[in-house]
Amino acid sequence: MSEIGIGVVGGGYMGKAHSVAMAAVGAVFGTTLRPRLEMIAASSAESAERYRAAFGFARATGDWRELVADPRVEAVVIATPQELHLEIAEAAFARGLPVMCEKPMGASLDEAEAMVRAAEGHVSMVGYNYVRTPATQFARKLVADGEIGDVTWFRGEHTEDFLADPQAPASWRTSGDANGTIGDLSPHMINCALALLGPIASVNAEIATVHGIRPGGEVTNDDHAQFMCRFASGVMGHLYFSRVATGRKMGYAYEITGTKGAIRFDQEDQNALWLYRAEGPEAERGFRKILTGPAHPDYEPFCLGPGHGTGYQDQIIIEARDFLQAIETGAPVWPTFADGLEVMRIIDAARRSAETRAWVDMAL
Amino acid sequence: MSEIGIGVVGGGYMGKAHSVAMAAVGAVFGTTLRPRLEMIAASSAESAERYRAAFGFARATGDWRELVADPRVEAVVIATPQELHLEIAEAAFARGLPVMCEKPMGASLDEAEAMVRAAEGHVSMVGYNYVRTPATQFARKLVADGEIGDVTWFRGEHTEDFLADPQAPASWRTSGDANGTIGDLSPHMINCALALLGPIASVNAEIATVHGIRPGGEVTNDDHAQFMCRFASGVMGHLYFSRVATGRKMGYAYEITGTKGAIRFDQEDQNALWLYRAEGPEAERGFRKILTGPAHPDYEPFCLGPGHGTGYQDQIIIEARDFLQAIETGAPVWPTFADGLEVMRIIDAARRSAETRAWVDMAL
Amino acid sequence: MSEIGIGVVGGGYMGKAHSVAMAAVGAVFGTTLRPRLEMIAASSAESAERYRAAFGFARATGDWRELVADPRVEAVVIATPQELHLEIAEAAFARGLPVMCEKPMGASLDEAEAMVRAAEGHVSMVGYNYVRTPATQFARKLVADGEIGDVTWFRGEHTEDFLADPQAPASWRTSGDANGTIGDLSPHMINCALALLGPIASVNAEIATVHGIRPGGEVTNDDHAQFMCRFASGVMGHLYFSRVATGRKMGYAYEITGTKGAIRFDQEDQNALWLYRAEGPEAERGFRKILTGPAHPDYEPFCLGPGHGTGYQDQIIIEARDFLQAIETGAPVWPTFADGLEVMRIIDAARRSAETRAWVDMAL
Amino acid sequence: MSEIGIGVVGGGYMGKAHSVAMAAVGAVFGTTLRPRLEMIAASSAESAERYRAAFGFARATGDWRELVADPRVEAVVIATPQELHLEIAEAAFARGLPVMCEKPMGASLDEAEAMVRAAEGHVSMVGYNYVRTPATQFARKLVADGEIGDVTWFRGEHTEDFLADPQAPASWRTSGDANGTIGDLSPHMINCALALLGPIASVNAEIATVHGIRPGGEVTNDDHAQFMCRFASGVMGHLYFSRVATGRKMGYAYEITGTKGAIRFDQEDQNALWLYRAEGPEAERGFRKILTGPAHPDYEPFCLGPGHGTGYQDQIIIEARDFLQAIETGAPVWPTFADGLEVMRIIDAARRSAETRAWVDMAL
Repeated sequence: MSEIGIGVVGGGYMGKAHSVAMAAVGAVFGTTLRPRLEMIAASSAESAERYRAAFGFARATGDWRELVADPRVEAVVIATPQELHLEIAEAAFARGLPVMCEKPMGASLDEAEAMVRAAEGHVSMVGYNYVRTPATQFARKLVADGEIGDVTWFRGEHTEDFLADPQAPASWRTSGDANGTIGDLSPHMINCALALLGPIASVNAEIATVHGIRPGGEVTNDDHAQFMCRFASGVMGHLYFSRVATGRKMGYAYEITGTKGAIRFDQEDQNALWLYRAEGPEAERGFRKILTGPAHPDYEPFCLGPGHGTGYQDQIIIEARDFLQAIETGAPVWPTFADGLEVMRIIDAARRSAETRAWVDMAL
Repeated sequence: MSEIGIGVVGGGYMGKAHSVAMAAVGAVFGTTLRPRLEMIAASSAESAERYRAAFGFARATGDWRELVADPRVEAVVIATPQELHLEIAEAAFARGLPVMCEKPMGASLDEAEAMVRAAEGHVSMVGYNYVRTPATQFARKLVADGEIGDVTWFRGEHTEDFLADPQAPASWRTSGDANGTIGDLSPHMINCALALLGPIASVNAEIATVHGIRPGGEVTNDDHAQFMCRFASGVMGHLYFSRVATGRKMGYAYEITGTKGAIRFDQEDQNALWLYRAEGPEAERGFRKILTGPAHPDYEPFCLGPGHGTGYQDQIIIEARDFLQAIETGAPVWPTFADGLEVMRIIDAARRSAETRAWVDMAL
Repeated sequence: MSEIGIGVVGGGYMGKAHSVAMAAVGAVFGTTLRPRLEMIAASSAESAERYRAAFGFARATGDWRELVADPRVEAVVIATPQELHLEIAEAAFARGLPVMCEKPMGASLDEAEAMVRAAEGHVSMVGYNYVRTPATQFARKLVADGEIGDVTWFRGEHTEDFLADPQAPASWRTSGDANGTIGDLSPHMINCALALLGPIASVNAEIATVHGIRPGGEVTNDDHAQFMCRFASGVMGHLYFSRVATGRKMGYAYEITGTKGAIRFDQEDQNALWLYRAEGPEAERGFRKILTGPAHPDYEPFCLGPGHGTGYQDQIIIEARDFLQAIETGAPVWPTFADGLEVMRIIDAARRSAETRAWVDMAL
Repeated sequence: MSEIGIGVVGGGYMGKAHSVAMAAVGAVFGTTLRPRLEMIAASSAESAERYRAAFGFARATGDWRELVADPRVEAVVIATPQELHLEIAEAAFARGLPVMCEKPMGASLDEAEAMVRAAEGHVSMVGYNYVRTPATQFARKLVADGEIGDVTWFRGEHTEDFLADPQAPASWRTSGDANGTIGDLSPHMINCALALLGPIASVNAEIATVHGIRPGGEVTNDDHAQFMCRFASGVMGHLYFSRVATGRKMGYAYEITGTKGAIRFDQEDQNALWLYRAEGPEAERGFRKILTGPAHPDYEPFCLGPGHGTGYQDQIIIEARDFLQAIETGAPVWPTFADGLEVMRIIDAARRSAETRAWVDMAL
């Protein structure tokens, strides 16, 4: 067993999640590589110190460059606004450090491409935590093993309602493409669709701002969007993303139809996977609600009892385990920056499709 | 109270449903006009006689023309294959009889248009029974009354799995546009979308045959289809139709998002409507599962107890009541043939969209 | 095919349900014996005439004795308050007529016993409609066929909330044992338990009035009750009945645990049966939600499409079919008056148990 | 901020859970007192060393006495079999250390009483983690605040199926009262009932062994049990416990009925609380599914997004926070050993009730 000094840049929502994960992952998974919470960076020395104390890091800094340059920092987690992703990643890779970066990669397709170039020869990973629930890992395995036959249809959504109220004021969230719904919410479910069904070949998208004016100013990015898509396998699909989906809190949900079965999942009940098998007497067929348990991927380290459930933070702990394994083996771990770039390319194609009101072929 | 002689053409699935409805509607609703099961027609005298005996009609005939011409037949229900709809309707209207016709209207857009012309000045009605459940009637009222605010998104589907098995043999169902998924399944949910949100302004569709070859021959119509659409109100929407949706038995389902609330419904649990209201303390918000009862439209005649539930046949009985009312008042009842034509126009636009891979504007 | 003249006594809630059922059953099931709605009786000539017109009977009377004595009345349905059940049944049996009587049988155990004596040699049936849903019929078959192995536990409830509001006024419902919760609500679920698991051997009950005073007067019967019970098979069970179960509209629900599987059902979603089978890979086990369809008992006559659903009224139609079959064959049909008496005996034992605060053995 | 040296006795299921919680609690809650994983004890030096390495403790020992005596151990978590609870607790209290002990307290009522005596003047806590989910904490608050009015009925269960298979072999689980269903499973839900509704005044129980013989030997403890109970408030209740509940994985579930509303919860979907309010138009009433989020107790430290969910391990982290707070303030934290004793007393009363087949009054 050996130690590795972790530097986390950003102490907000995801910065905290990664810090807790790094504190817990060793005990949960008994990893041979053990994270040492070495340094945390934030936008000011004061906030960084506050995060340090709260999360249990050894040191703090108001300058991320100091963190990246520190000799005791041996791996970097980037949990800042997207605008900083590229610069920090380049600096970390320049030192040869492994980097886990929160989604989306960079603030634009160009930046994402630059990040992939910078990552070459290094360990990189994008923070798509939701595909790591035991339920979705199991769904992925069922599909890959052909358990539901040939897939014929996929429907995915990521819907929340944090801006559903038209009176919610304009803010940083309501300007900048990267903060809009397809910039901010869509990457998780696009990544999930790729994980479950493989590459997307073409898209036909609509992107819209529902509430153009909010108290405090104009809204300059999108509220919701839908994509019709075709996977490279020929499967027809549909994706929907919304931050104005009244009533939806964590509507990361998908349906997969196959010739021999079907799967349904909704993150709002993340410990259940619904499976239908077109077999046995007609009178006994139905979607079964499978509760995750030790029989499913990465569940048992959290609890020996089935149905006892894992939660949001546990997904980040699984992600931390994967990052540590990548570091130990030197091998890239899915999704790498290159994988994350594919998500950005699909978003870019969707933007072009919405503008031209036409199908966009990913191969072109 | 007075009587009216009913003639039903067709004794299969829907012919039986309408016959039962005509037998029961008086007792259920205490209608002032009472149906008398006068005559049933089928493709042969033998099968007609069998239906007559089973359903309780006074007379039977193997020739629908005889039925339409019979002086004791005062209203006609058409429940034949689509190919016959136009001819029968024209003959009935020529005699000045009220006509209820099963969906879809005619076998093509041209036929549907001819049916509308023939219906002018007469009582006509299309058999869209599903919009008549107490739950969907209530949803329609909630939306119309602005209870969920301005609608911002609609998603509808009609998915079943009766041809999901690739080994299901080729049959009449697998040839002919009118028998394909958008010809046969899509009209109900398109009608529902129109009922709930008003006119559709444009569509962008994909239509596909998943299993091109089946035991016994080639499949020449579609297995599933998706439409992106815009309502005239500007609301973005999505529709999906499938007869290969493994696991789905009666997936007539919709979600309506508004600025003040949201609604969810699935015909597989037709006695529940899910309503979310963006009001009250955040900690107490959630979709509530409303069980239909006497407080909802057209429930109480079936049962005084809430949550006791209505079923498929009851929808047809409600429809029969509406048809009788239209006859009594002489006024058309939604959806008339003209309303039904709108569904056919949308299907036609979708076909053109799928061919051209482009948006089609309904106004053009 | 032959006709039978039906006389219905009572035109309220259940009187209407049976009248509609008699109007529809022939067309639905194609019965060889066809009901003719001959006469309806109510507490006054005026209300009887109103029911006659509404439901479509040939004649009406304000005196049930006239109905029972009428030569054209060939079968009697009793849907009056319990206090009249015995007298009407005795008169009908005296004329040799078949009798269907609404539950509970009589207003007391003594009356129920007298009804059984009167029914000897005649066709009798008690109106336990809920056991006739396709879902519960299927559950009964699964249990009987050993599909869930040896049963080890049963939990049933019948809970509604029509008197949950403490401000709901005192009325006929709040006085008289027969109108209390165990008098009025419990018989259905007790009958269901007997149907599913066989005889009950002993009970230990608590019976309580939650709101002793209501606007308008004192409450002199019970609001809710629970029974621990042992079936003759040794299976442990629990039953709960309540008319003050806030939020429950039709909580006729049960869970059956077996060594090889388990079943769950809730009448509030009467078209679904939940089945768990302890077989196959652990990772794929879960309760499956089976939607009723043509593969289940008595569904297909109502609709050819699975998942399209039956409702409350349809149960009464199934019951009417069973009554007609009993009349045709002369054979008793479950549950006969003798079967219904067993329910009354259990209620009586529960009352004694609640008074003595001790187990009561049914055999004593 | 200061540190406290934690000693954990036992490295199995719960020993791991508490170790992970102690590793994570500081970062999650920003506690002022920070646990230092000082020492872990197990039944042998080898297994202790394995646990030490896996969970990240500084030291290990095969003798719990050494741990309790160690000057750097400042608080003790007991996660051993029940037989050792008393002895370890006494030794720790003798040194003046705060003790958190897993349920049930001791192997018998006598031992539990001795533990309470030993705990006097010290910080003690029993590990009832399930009452600490955000959903159940919120339910408790709703009830306490009178949000559902006066409670009239409570039903709770803790059902699992780990011994549902009759062919599961005899083991330590199948002998010894403390390992039976009421010894092992019932304490959690009894504690929950007390937390939600206050003291239980009397019980009437049935306790049974379903499978008396298993491969490998006789079963000498109970498989399932039911209690009718009355709370001190007069509320009627029912509790059911089973380890043979085929299909149930974590059936820790309850229903609370009140005069103004009702609550339902099932740990198998621990991030949802179902609330019914008897207010507003009848047509809009229904149980609402509330997803836990930052608006609910102890959720936000785990995630800022509502509906993103917490899991089993998070409950133990909340528990660790409560234990640390108790240590800091010196004040006892619910449930203390004295609270835990009440659970043991109810179990004892239930055993006596089952033997005598009679109600047992807790006050006697």
